[in-house]
Amino acid sequence: NSQLKIFSLNSNNPLAQEIAQEMGVELGKSSVKHFSDGEIQISIEESIRGCDVFIVQSTSAPVNEHLMELLIMVDAVKRASARTVNVVMPYYGYARQDRKAKAREPITAKLVANLLETAGATRVIVLDLHAPQIQGFFDILIDHLMAVPLLSDYFKSKGIPADEIVVVSPDHGGVTRARKMAERLKAPIAIIDKRRPKPNVAEVMNIVGNVDGKVAILIDDIIDTAGTITIGADALRAAGAKEVYACCSHPVLSGPAIERIENSAIKELVVTNTIQLAEEKKSPKITELSVAKLMADAISRVYENKSVSTLFD
Amino acid sequence: NSQLKIFSLNSNNPLAQEIAQEMGVELGKSSVKHFSDGEIQISIEESIRGCDVFIVQSTSAPVNEHLMELLIMVDAVKRASARTVNVVMPYYGYARQDRKAKAREPITAKLVANLLETAGATRVIVLDLHAPQIQGFFDILIDHLMAVPLLSDYFKSKGIPADEIVVVSPDHGGVTRARKMAERLKAPIAIIDKRRPKPNVAEVMNIVGNVDGKVAILIDDIIDTAGTITIGADALRAAGAKEVYACCSHPVLSGPAIERIENSAIKELVVTNTIQLAEEKKSPKITELSVAKLMADAISRVYENKSVSTLFD
Ligand SMILES: Nc1ncnc2c1ncn2[C@@H]1O[C@H](COP(=O)(O)O)[C@@H](O)[C@H]1O
Ligand SMILES: Nc1ncnc2c1ncn2[C@@H]1O[C@H](COP(=O)(O)O)[C@@H](O)[C@H]1O
Repeated sequence: NSQLKIFSLNSNNPLAQEIAQEMGVELGKSSVKHFSDGEIQISIEESIRGCDVFIVQSTSAPVNEHLMELLIMVDAVKRASARTVNVVMPYYGYARQDRKAKAREPITAKLVANLLETAGATRVIVLDLHAPQIQGFFDILIDHLMAVPLLSDYFKSKGIPADEIVVVSPDHGGVTRARKMAERLKAPIAIIDKRRPKPNVAEVMNIVGNVDGKVAILIDDIIDTAGTITIGADALRAAGAKEVYACCSHPVLSGPAIERIENSAIKELVVTNTIQLAEEKKSPKITELSVAKLMADAISRVYENKSVSTLFD
Repeated sequence: NSQLKIFSLNSNNPLAQEIAQEMGVELGKSSVKHFSDGEIQISIEESIRGCDVFIVQSTSAPVNEHLMELLIMVDAVKRASARTVNVVMPYYGYARQDRKAKAREPITAKLVANLLETAGATRVIVLDLHAPQIQGFFDILIDHLMAVPLLSDYFKSKGIPADEIVVVSPDHGGVTRARKMAERLKAPIAIIDKRRPKPNVAEVMNIVGNVDGKVAILIDDIIDTAGTITIGADALRAAGAKEVYACCSHPVLSGPAIERIENSAIKELVVTNTIQLAEEKKSPKITELSVAKLMADAISRVYENKSVSTLFD
């Protein structure tokens, strides 16, 4: 069998370290520096000839910097005669630009897929894409992991009786995700259905489903400025929910997010470490769960040519 | 004939404006903004269906930001049903990473060419590539302009007698460029030939050619940290040159460049505006010449399907 090598770039080195530790290997030796003019200078400091190489990089902010690091590393790994070039992207940036919603918009999520293939990636491992259809943007193999089991297990461990829980989707686009968590917790679902009755009139929060007296768990894939989730939490409390938890796979948490979360009805926000949380974004309300074991299992299975989908059974 | 449209991105809007003015057209309406998390949001605010579109963008610092702006814009223009998508890159970033100088290095200049093609560029117009071989990195059409005529004409206009001038290449890699300028000025050339006699011994500046009592004009394609050019200027003075001028196509001028130039024997540094000079990089020693007319002529000729190479006759 050919040798396994895992390399980390700059977006999420702690997660890459943890993945390597889970697998009982050392991270490959490499460095990403900048020339005086800001151009990226990558050097791979050990032979990878004939190896199966896995590059761990989330394209979180600064997204353009992290994406270019990844593309240049893929190019370098390919030219260093690796057998396979596997890109492990716990967070896939630009995923929300996945269709033309207006005339003359780019479809940047598809562009990113094409750029990765052009650079030389032979396989991609991702987690909770904003839309599962993005899998189809790739002509190379793609494995799509899910954080729902991890998040569900955390809430299970709280010992809240199942008949007190309701899993809530913050919008109609996220119902499938809420459904998956609800199944695992054996709980019902509810949906927050925002409607604007007339143009220039405030949105009305309509809650579909029963939340009165219940422990509500809001689930989303990405929490960015946290507007939707915090307004939803307040609406749930107003509708009689006893407590409101929130969770997501990817804590983007840009702009006013932390302030909004701290001032909201959310009791605890549970996130994963697909995106490294900057120090100033840490908050006593936020709990981080690690996807390291999940990613390590996926890498092992890809390396050993075993099915990755069995990870979700 | 289909319609011509010129769009500017964020790296060098003054040059794009000047090009449009030269051609007697208005720049196309578009905007490049950022979402809260830093992702690029591009919108094209007029129809470009069936048009020949020219996008003006230098991939100068911040290079990764400017390159991603360009790739996303190319994607948007292509999807908006433009007839042709022409990329006008007065400065081509990552050009110095054009070969594997060491084991396991990327060839980022080739990667950039592939990324532009993948995004949907149908033709590229560039100026003074670090190595002319980069033209061959593209499978699409590429036009390669030269700043030597512009720089030469400026020095001609100073009225220095031709037999007092010597055109100097700061290293053996730039001799062809120096030769071209020398021909135009009807002057001889000289070469600065740096040698390290033994490892860990200071480099010796060996000047090949006669510079004693002459007006020396150093010419390079890129001046980045300005180490080579300022050391060269001092060596020329020490070898008896009466005055030392320097010129280049692309004023990268990173790190200590401005300070070095101001403290050097260089009397005047002549550059072009392929890279927009930040306010703090303006210096009384630096003269900026505009490539707007040259780029405008090239765009007109490409649009009218005429030969671009005649621009250099
Ligand atoms: N980084 C981003 N931040 C906020 N909105 C975005 C971002 N990228 C794309 N969008 C917009 O979000 C919409 C897609 O979000 P969604 O409806 O949740 O799938 C699209 O109309 C995009 O214009
Ligand atoms: N942005 C940059 N700044 C400084 N050096 C670079 C840069 N990009 C590439 N290089 C290095 O410069 C060398 C090529 O320069 P040259 O010999 O002048 O063609 C290569 O060995 C590169 O490693």
